[in-house]
Amino acid sequence: MLRRRLLAAPLAAAPGLAPVLAQGAGEPPIALRAMGSFHIGGREAVVTGRPVKEVALVPGSVPARIDPNGTYQVEAMYVQYHLPAAPRGAVPLLLWHGGGLTGVTWESTPDGREGWQQYFLRWGWATYVSDAVERGRAGWAMSPEIFQGDPVFLTKQDPWERFRIGAGPGSWRTRTALPGTQFPIDAYDAFMRQVVPRWTTTDAAQLAAYRALLRQVGPAVVLAHSQGGLFACRAAQAEPAQVRALVLLEPSGFGEATPEALGALRGIPVLALYGDFIDQDARWPAIRQRGLDFYEKLRAAGGAVEVVSLPERGLRGNSHMMMMDRNNQAVAQVVQDWLAARGLWQ
Amino acid sequence: MLRRRLLAAPLAAAPGLAPVLAQGAGEPPIALRAMGSFHIGGREAVVTGRPVKEVALVPGSVPARIDPNGTYQVEAMYVQYHLPAAPRGAVPLLLWHGGGLTGVTWESTPDGREGWQQYFLRWGWATYVSDAVERGRAGWAMSPEIFQGDPVFLTKQDPWERFRIGAGPGSWRTRTALPGTQFPIDAYDAFMRQVVPRWTTTDAAQLAAYRALLRQVGPAVVLAHSQGGLFACRAAQAEPAQVRALVLLEPSGFGEATPEALGALRGIPVLALYGDFIDQDARWPAIRQRGLDFYEKLRAAGGAVEVVSLPERGLRGNSHMMMMDRNNQAVAQVVQDWLAARGLWQ
Repeated sequence: MLRRRLLAAPLAAAPGLAPVLAQGAGEPPIALRAMGSFHIGGREAVVTGRPVKEVALVPGSVPARIDPNGTYQVEAMYVQYHLPAAPRGAVPLLLWHGGGLTGVTWESTPDGREGWQQYFLRWGWATYVSDAVERGRAGWAMSPEIFQGDPVFLTKQDPWERFRIGAGPGSWRTRTALPGTQFPIDAYDAFMRQVVPRWTTTDAAQLAAYRALLRQVGPAVVLAHSQGGLFACRAAQAEPAQVRALVLLEPSGFGEATPEALGALRGIPVLALYGDFIDQDARWPAIRQRGLDFYEKLRAAGGAVEVVSLPERGLRGNSHMMMMDRNNQAVAQVVQDWLAARGLWQ
Repeated sequence: MLRRRLLAAPLAAAPGLAPVLAQGAGEPPIALRAMGSFHIGGREAVVTGRPVKEVALVPGSVPARIDPNGTYQVEAMYVQYHLPAAPRGAVPLLLWHGGGLTGVTWESTPDGREGWQQYFLRWGWATYVSDAVERGRAGWAMSPEIFQGDPVFLTKQDPWERFRIGAGPGSWRTRTALPGTQFPIDAYDAFMRQVVPRWTTTDAAQLAAYRALLRQVGPAVVLAHSQGGLFACRAAQAEPAQVRALVLLEPSGFGEATPEALGALRGIPVLALYGDFIDQDARWPAIRQRGLDFYEKLRAAGGAVEVVSLPERGLRGNSHMMMMDRNNQAVAQVVQDWLAARGLWQ
């Protein structure tokens, strides 16, 4: 302990580094057997008929002849893994982010605390954090030649009012947060730096890459947020042998409802978590209801679904971004306890 | 050792996972005091006059009203850090990637071996791997409203012929590699999955974010590749107190050549590394010559620059992507020995 404090001292002089240094303070080191990353999935796409350009890629350097015509490698997904030296999870834990975001969702919180990636690693899970097709390190493809439609960009106002951080429509103008919110609102700008553009026309490519990931590293537990819930349900329906459990954090999309598709999930326990302030929101009651309808169909088909409303468990104030809220460790503990109770962690 | 092999066994059954498992095999665990990430830098940008849309962000879900007008958080950089439990580097090591790429450059190689991030971590360096502004997890901004000009996309042909992997112009058609190349050409498609779009109009924003990073975590060693060399030299000239050494891997851009700017680098030792096959390439002799001219000016101003041609050290066959070539550990060792000789590692 003393040694760690001494080592931290010179760095602590740097302004603004306090949150980084606070991470893991007093915790034992994280020991990794291996860490690394890979891209998976995707296809080739051919572009023709565009003009060739001479481009100065670096000012003053030798111009490069850039010919945009040819074959591109597109629609792969990025995956970064950290494998603990002393694993306790029965299978790997795959963390799938929501729309307009990347795997950064699971890393340090916007205000510099540890995130779910670190918590689950410390609990001994092999973690695989991915950036979905066209998000973050997955890269993106020429549009409209390869990707259809326009990308969606989010202003600072949008998640504030839509993710149950601010008090609904109009609350950005006055920066009015929901009373009792657990979101670290002083770090809202830092959260907005995590937001990336997204298309709405790439679902099939994203699903294909998630399925490829499951075939590569499954069987696994899939922990998915928001838009990621759509892919988690559908990938599990398509690759049921590769999924041991589904954890859905406020999913905004769900699985197919055919008897075959529902039946595929029969052996896969599902935990669905919902935060606070849903009843007073304009859109969230309907999004949750779509989930409740799907879970009911799943139960009728023999599936096992547990729905947890965090406020009913005494965890109040959670936004849509519950994995980065101030009580994010307590929320992670709900997931961890549920997985342990299913024999997936020793 | 026995325990590790047993743990790996169930995973080894998954097809295609062999490279992942091979990583770190037989090595001691990597022990981390902390790990995490943050975004740094950037500014706000306002967009007006665009139509509001109702968008189905997830099929069948409650449509969201997306108003693209408003304030965006743009031009931040993404930084991921791993801090060893037993540090041996005197200062942190910052790894800055080249054009059309992200921090993935330093992670696992395209053929699944360990990369420089892992090597330097195992040597006890605190590593900070960044995605430059508009690349990867840094996200990108609306264009042409915020970013000027068109993004550049690279076909599969382009790096093959331009990064001294294939045997120059025309070699992609026949997939002719340079004889004796160290690049893992069987994994070329995996490398192309790492390539991301880039603008050529964002240099000022990238430099500003790199400077902010140096002020946040410096003093530091900066290890930069290709386009990253431009930013490394200029950020060091602007923040010389925050840089202890510069390591430039085939830089394609350099510092300012004013007396003041050259003088700022006087106390910062520079190592410049060049791979093989340069003399037979159409563009690389001129790119290297621009570097040699800059180093000569730097020496005349009192700076210390060491230029290493890897083939002259007996390391033959290196491409522009030397950190992922098959002999990437031997190349990393050249850097590590140079840093140790400068008292920056014990």
